[in-house]
Amino acid sequence: MSDQKTWTAALLVIGDEILSGRTQDKNIAQLAPWLNEQGIRLLEVRVVPDDIGRIAAAVNALRTTHDYLFTTGGIGPTHDDITVDAMAEAFSVPVVIHPEARKILEDYYRDRAGGLTEARLRMARAPDGAELIKNPYSGAPGIRLGNVFILAGVPDIVASMLEGLTGKLEGGQPMVSVTVGARAPESEVADLLRETEAANPGVMIGSYPFFTSDRHGANFVIRSEDGELARMAGEELVARLREAGYDPVEGGI
Amino acid sequence: MSDQKTWTAALLVIGDEILSGRTQDKNIAQLAPWLNEQGIRLLEVRVVPDDIGRIAAAVNALRTTHDYLFTTGGIGPTHDDITVDAMAEAFSVPVVIHPEARKILEDYYRDRAGGLTEARLRMARAPDGAELIKNPYSGAPGIRLGNVFILAGVPDIVASMLEGLTGKLEGGQPMVSVTVGARAPESEVADLLRETEAANPGVMIGSYPFFTSDRHGANFVIRSEDGELARMAGEELVARLREAGYDPVEGGI
Repeated sequence: MSDQKTWTAALLVIGDEILSGRTQDKNIAQLAPWLNEQGIRLLEVRVVPDDIGRIAAAVNALRTTHDYLFTTGGIGPTHDDITVDAMAEAFSVPVVIHPEARKILEDYYRDRAGGLTEARLRMARAPDGAELIKNPYSGAPGIRLGNVFILAGVPDIVASMLEGLTGKLEGGQPMVSVTVGARAPESEVADLLRETEAANPGVMIGSYPFFTSDRHGANFVIRSEDGELARMAGEELVARLREAGYDPVEGGI
Repeated sequence: MSDQKTWTAALLVIGDEILSGRTQDKNIAQLAPWLNEQGIRLLEVRVVPDDIGRIAAAVNALRTTHDYLFTTGGIGPTHDDITVDAMAEAFSVPVVIHPEARKILEDYYRDRAGGLTEARLRMARAPDGAELIKNPYSGAPGIRLGNVFILAGVPDIVASMLEGLTGKLEGGQPMVSVTVGARAPESEVADLLRETEAANPGVMIGSYPFFTSDRHGANFVIRSEDGELARMAGEELVARLREAGYDPVEGGI
């Protein structure tokens, strides 16, 4: 197992609306478990504003250090949609009208009011050399350029694009996680957690506290690429918590 | 106005639980509007795993390029809480037990079961030279080191730490935003938006589409450091939309 390559990804969230707090990002929480199912680890996320220079710099920093880079946002028809231009700058290629994308938009807008206007044709712009990512939700396609996947910003559209990519990317083993909860302050069981992790090589244990009314508690997430190791460590943690007088909840609280 | 310094910040979200998709981050959306109220622009967010090397590298990249850096997560009592160690590495200083933090924890745990254990004393660890950030919510303080503000991960604790920092950081003008909505596909009004932005220097217009049942629509967010400019551009956009046959909704949809 340890000889196998670990496939990695980064996510670049593009949009002033996230950085201003106007919009709560939902794409991190959506992309993360999807990537895990593909056997790919999400190792970094960055959020940058609608600024070509900043987007291009982040694209180049992330695409060269991860197997895959996904971006969300900025591929619509309005003047603030500049992801394609930033991507072209990052790759030092020109922006072209992608013939297949133009065809998709022609079909999509044929029977819709206004037809394929100049503004809508903006959504057929792509960095030279790109392939398209299907958008069953609203027509305008996503774009793949090398190891970079340029997705929409609207979460439902992202979901439909990811559905089309499911099973198509090279990856390794998904990370398996087992959750155990306890109604105890995590500071009381810190030693017990550390010891359980140390006794189970190949397993990581995270502790995530919560505070409800005046009872403190925490969920402990045991993760491993080897499902059997994760399950065994989970059972050991349950036994240790019980032995220490707690009432562990398998599956978490 | 344009001669004034623009104060900038970055946010580093630390935690495997965000990157695995287990936990939906709420701190970006919480910190962003708070920073704006302080007259500080949030220009970048990064999310990194619980890895000392990766945290330290991101800290050094972000603290040197922004006026302020905030971090969330990883300052609890368990073995996976390594933010303090990463910060010490980033600043090349040792980790010490902060005397004032020890005092706070002694007081907090005096009447609580177990008292101040070794695990709980972990929360008094700080990079040498740090000041404390008050935590009225759960005792264990945050940490300020130079221009870096190390906050908790639990959103309610972050909120109580930010409350204590309100009005205490040097900043400039908050960005004022005016929102106008329309039940029209944004691709229909793209030219109109671009023209309105071009006719109003000092103002930025973002377009944020939504898709409900089969009616498309969008909210247009007009932003400026000058509230009067933002309001004037908003009125102009409303007038232009009305003239073009739409029924604009002031305040957004």
